[in-house]
Parts: sequence; structure tokens; C-alpha cells
Amino acid sequence: MSLKDDALKMHKENKGKLEIKSKVKIENQEDLSLAYTPGVAFVCKEIERDKELAYDYTSKNNMVAVITDGSAVLGLGNIGPYGAIPVMEGKSILLKELAGVDSIPLCLKTQNVEEIISICKALEPTLGAINLEDISAPRCVTIERRLIEEMDIPVFHDDQHGTSIIVAAAFLNIERFTKRKLSDMTVVLSGTGAAGSMVAKMLKKIGVGKIYAYNITGVVDKNKYDSYDFLIKELIDEGVFDTPEAHDNTLASIIKGADAFVGVSAPNLVSKEMVKSMNDKPIIFAMANPNPEITYDDAIEAGAYIVGSGRSDYPNQINNVLAFPGIFKGALAVRAKKINEEMKLAAAYAISSIIKDEELRCDYIVPSAFDKRVVDSVSKAVMEAAIKTGVTRK
Amino acid sequence: MSLKDDALKMHKENKGKLEIKSKVKIENQEDLSLAYTPGVAFVCKEIERDKELAYDYTSKNNMVAVITDGSAVLGLGNIGPYGAIPVMEGKSILLKELAGVDSIPLCLKTQNVEEIISICKALEPTLGAINLEDISAPRCVTIERRLIEEMDIPVFHDDQHGTSIIVAAAFLNIERFTKRKLSDMTVVLSGTGAAGSMVAKMLKKIGVGKIYAYNITGVVDKNKYDSYDFLIKELIDEGVFDTPEAHDNTLASIIKGADAFVGVSAPNLVSKEMVKSMNDKPIIFAMANPNPEITYDDAIEAGAYIVGSGRSDYPNQINNVLAFPGIFKGALAVRAKKINEEMKLAAAYAISSIIKDEELRCDYIVPSAFDKRVVDSVSKAVMEAAIKTGVTRK
Repeated sequence: MSLKDDALKMHKENKGKLEIKSKVKIENQEDLSLAYTPGVAFVCKEIERDKELAYDYTSKNNMVAVITDGSAVLGLGNIGPYGAIPVMEGKSILLKELAGVDSIPLCLKTQNVEEIISICKALEPTLGAINLEDISAPRCVTIERRLIEEMDIPVFHDDQHGTSIIVAAAFLNIERFTKRKLSDMTVVLSGTGAAGSMVAKMLKKIGVGKIYAYNITGVVDKNKYDSYDFLIKELIDEGVFDTPEAHDNTLASIIKGADAFVGVSAPNLVSKEMVKSMNDKPIIFAMANPNPEITYDDAIEAGAYIVGSGRSDYPNQINNVLAFPGIFKGALAVRAKKINEEMKLAAAYAISSIIKDEELRCDYIVPSAFDKRVVDSVSKAVMEAAIKTGVTRK
Repeated sequence: MSLKDDALKMHKENKGKLEIKSKVKIENQEDLSLAYTPGVAFVCKEIERDKELAYDYTSKNNMVAVITDGSAVLGLGNIGPYGAIPVMEGKSILLKELAGVDSIPLCLKTQNVEEIISICKALEPTLGAINLEDISAPRCVTIERRLIEEMDIPVFHDDQHGTSIIVAAAFLNIERFTKRKLSDMTVVLSGTGAAGSMVAKMLKKIGVGKIYAYNITGVVDKNKYDSYDFLIKELIDEGVFDTPEAHDNTLASIIKGADAFVGVSAPNLVSKEMVKSMNDKPIIFAMANPNPEITYDDAIEAGAYIVGSGRSDYPNQINNVLAFPGIFKGALAVRAKKINEEMKLAAAYAISSIIKDEELRCDYIVPSAFDKRVVDSVSKAVMEAAIKTGVTRK
């Protein structure tokens, strides 16, 4: 059987991947009078008096909504909210199985930004947090920013932040392993969408020296400022993106001499020659999925020293599963109001710290997605950062 | 410990009443590649091609949202969406424990009718059905009607229909037990809100002869037509409500000589004298909760033959738990697009049929809320009615 057949069969046999479960038994009148009427009325009145008590008396304390509009699902594009359901259910069960976090997939039958915002806001009472998922850029950025501003529970768009946190963890380990300072490094980024922009921000935050960016319009250059969307403009303004001194608008022209390449863009953009033109012991993270900017084998053949990808069948997989379960677990544990930059950074450091100095290898820069230590390490670090930055309720 | 202490303790210890559960294990890379990327993409593409396949491949086929705006929670009034959470969670676990139906409580932070309608509509992709709950009248009627019209999955407002279905089941059994024809009966209804209006409709549908109605403005009289809301006008127009020939706008004046009283209104509206003024062997269903229109003991003392209430500590409890779990189970089993009048009526007949002729007694007109035969009987009847009326997908 092919992967396709197996996946269809598994989904059909189980009729979807999640169900709900009662934490209490309802077998007789006494059970009913405690969990439902008349006993439940006392609980309602307590929460009416102080809505924060919903965290004590209801499932809100551990409940995430995984919300999408189906506009940018995996690499499949705008397949709509029905096609998106299996991915959201997958995310939900990962949250549960890896971090014990409950969640409900909600695929919205609207792609109107304002409507999505007002729906998310209206859903706040029952939820402890929102995970936005697979919403196209730059709409996803607008939606996430507005919701962070206007809601009192964490809102986290995994496509923006997940990759950036794990790439940052990888670069922290590269610094430890290679003893090359991040501040001396030039990184070339291909792809400046939701994920790419945040990768750049995070790399800058952990101290990367220079970041040159490339996207479908060519090399990001402050001389072309007016042609960019608000995200790219921001990153230029904040000094995250540097403009290469000389370039002919090709990726080849800016990758020359660079220390590292990070791709969240499209297949086959990087040739062996381009790898050869980089600085000594070049670092390649080619994360276009399933077909990367350059294959693992080609990158190694061309002399790459450390290679990572989005694929599970090669070393150093940048898998979001390393970040979001622990981040939500930590944020919910302290009833956080936000997931802020400090918490994301703490997650990156926590992921990197899983691998000890003496364990680091070229093909073991990023921990395994199934390393059970990761969730606890990330959630603890996120909790501490939340407490330190004062965004908790507890 | 008091019921209050017990209920608070139970909710706090469990941190809410429901959690989600994965139907599949995620323990290694192979599990991940089937339930999530890359395997899940094949499932997404199938559903993109035909959205009806979401019923085969996702949890949509068994997933209900229990939705409220907190505007009319139990007898507590407009306590808002936070205070409402424990009731919605209670409803959710009842659906699961009694009928195996999955559901998610969603308490909306808006009481705007149009907003509630558009949120429900946007949530359609992930859901198999919607249970509206504890929304104030007549807004609840507007919302339910619009959603039934504009959505392609069943929308059912339990507060409107639950009581009416079980009261109808009770009257079907009263006819069998007393051998008095429903068509010869005059029923006095107190309360013409969401529940009362539907009780009247349902009683008319099963053949009750005359229905006189009373509400906070006095006796419903077609001569006062212009002073009524749209619901009461409709019931007058449809001939559901009859106007008593002589009355002085008091409940006492219309209950005189009536065969049955049905109250979904307020405590202590019915005196012993009023019961005594009724026809022989009067029937009293006093369902104001927790304090009924007349207590069981007073009704019996005044000569009532059959007495029912909303309370579990007296005979003939009209408990919605008898209806909604089986109704949703049946509707979901055939992937119904609606829950129509025929399906509700079928549920009433199914509930009544649980008690055999020879088992019927004055204090056993309505089956117990914990009679395990009820759910199956109701769900089968609802499925058959759905198939017969052509509202199924299967």
C-alpha cells in the first residue's frame, strides 16, 4: 500500500482522529445533579461573579482552538476549510499526545480578515488559547497581531513562529558546535513570507550578524523599499534585513561567501555551485517541503558541513512539533495572557539545550521530534519567561 | 456538604468536565506521517475534491457544537458566556455519556443576533450539527430559524424543542393510560416563551383539542392580537392557541373545567382551588424549575390524577435528557441536513413507546432519564423519520 492508501484508510477507519471524553461519570441522578442541573448552577454563579474562575471550574484552563480558514494548507494552497480539517485534527491530537493539551479544530467558512478576527474574539470565553494555522500571508500576520492586541488569551500562529523558534535553536547549537560566533555570520534567507520573516527576526534576536533576504521578486534591497509589503518594510526598518553591497538580484549573487543558507521558499533554488561559492563549512537549512531548495545529498556532495530540512527522512529535521506542544503547555500552565517574544526565545533556548555540548554532531544539531524531554523543557522555559515578563494570571 | 459545595468541589478537582482524546497513537515517525504530514495531505486533497467526504475522513460525522451566548442560562438569566460554560460542558458530557456523541462547548462573547448567526455559519465545516442552548427568547427563535434555513447541518435549540417533545410523549401516554382522547381535551398552558410555544405546537400536532394560553400579560386572546410578539401571533394564526369564550384575564378563569394544565412559567401560579375547579381527574405538569407552578404534594392533595414536573425527586420528570442525546445520535447517524418536525415527532412517539400499556401508572407516564432503552429508541425513530422525509446525506 502507498502512503496515500494508508493515510486514507487510517482516517476512514477511525472516522476522524479525535473525540471528546467526559472526565466525570453520568450514571445516576446524583451524578447528573452535580455535573448538570441543579448543582451546576452554583458553579455558574461563582464564575458569573468572577470570570477568572472559569480557569478553575471549567476545561478552559487546558483548551486550545486550532483555527484556520483553509487559505494556505500545508503546501497545498487555498484548499478551503473542509480540506483543511484533517490537518487541524492532526494538530489537535499532537497537542494532546505530546503535551496533554486539549484542543478543538475549527475550520472557518470565511476568508474575510475582519470576520475571522471577530469570530476568534467571540470564542474567547471557552478557550485558554488559540493556535492559528495555515492562514495565508500577510493576512495571517494582521490577524495574529490584532488578536494578540485585542484578546486576553494567548494567540499563536504556528506557521509564523514554529519554524523560526526551531531554526533559532539550531543556530544556537551551530554556534556551540562550530565555535563560530553568530555575530560574525552572514545568513542568506530565501522566502520572506510568514515563516521566513519570523525566522529572520528570531535569528537577529539570537545575534546573527547579517541577514540577506531573497524572495520571488529577487533580492530584498532597501532601494526597492516602496515595492514591498508591510512585513518586509518593517524588517528593513528594524535592521533585520541587510542589503548586500553588490548583487545582480539573483540568489547566486548574495549566497556567495555567506556562512549559511536558510530556505523557506521553493524547490531547487540552490545549486551545488552556489553551495561551493559559500564560505568554508557552509550551513544549509533547506526547508521547502516536501521538495527542498537543495536536496540533502546534493548539499553534502557540494561540501555543506551542516544540513537541515523539513523532512523526517534526513538529519536535523526542523519539525514544528518540537515547539508548539511545549509552548502551549507552558502558556496554559500559568494561564498566560500572551505568548510574547521572550517566551518564544525561551522555547528556542530550551530546544537547543536538549543536546549537550559533547553530543552535538553535524547530523545532530536539532533534537528528534520524538525526544520526550523536549516538551517538558520547552514548557518549563516558557512558563518561567511568562512569569518573568508578567503576562500570567497565576 | 451541601450540593453547592459538592458541585464546586467536583468541578474544581476535575478542572472542568471534558477533555479531548486522540483516536490514534502518535508514538513514532510512521504514526506522524499518517496522521499528520506528509500523509494527511492526501486526505485533504480528497476532501477538497468533494467536501462531503469530510464525513468519512474527519470527526465531523459525530461532532456537535453546544453554542450559547449566556443570555438565558438555566433559571439564572443573562449571566453571560463565562458563567454559562459549566452548563454547556454538562450538556457536552451528557451527549457523550448517554449517546456517544462528541461535542464542544462554545460560549460566545456576543449577544448580537446577526453576529451569532454568522459565527455559527462560519463554524459549519468542522461540525456535524449545532445544539443551541440557553439563548433568550424570542432571539433564540430567530437565530434557530435563520440557521436552519441557511445551514446544511442540523441546528436544534434544545430549550425550545426538548421540553415539547417530552411533554408530547407524556400526553401520548396519558391518552393510552386514561383512554381519554387527546382531541377531547382542553389544555391550559402557562408560559408562551421559547419552550411554551413549542409545547403548544407539539401538543396540537399530536391531536390535543383545545389549547388556552396564559402568560405574563394575562390570557392569550386573539382580540389582543397586535400586542403580541411574532411567536404568539403565529400560534394564533396557525390555530394552535384557542381563545377561551369567557375569561377575566386570570389563569383561574381559564383553568376552570380544563382537563390538563401545563406550566413552563413561574412558581406558585396554581392554587389548590384552581386544581379543584378543573375537570375530573385533572392532569398537572408544573415544570417551572426548581419551584413549580404548584408543588407535587399540593396538586395531589387537591385531587390531581397525574402530576409531572421538571424535578428529579418527584414522579414523571420532564427531563430534556430523554430527548436530545438520541435526537443528535440519530441525526448524525444519517448525516442529516436538518432536524425537522417529523423527526421531533418521531422522538416523542419513541419516548412514549418505552412504557408498555400494562406498565403505565399515574406516577409512571414518562420514562426515567436513566432508562438506557430511550436513546436507542429515539435515535432509531429519528433516523427513520429523517430518511422518510429525505433530509439525509446517506
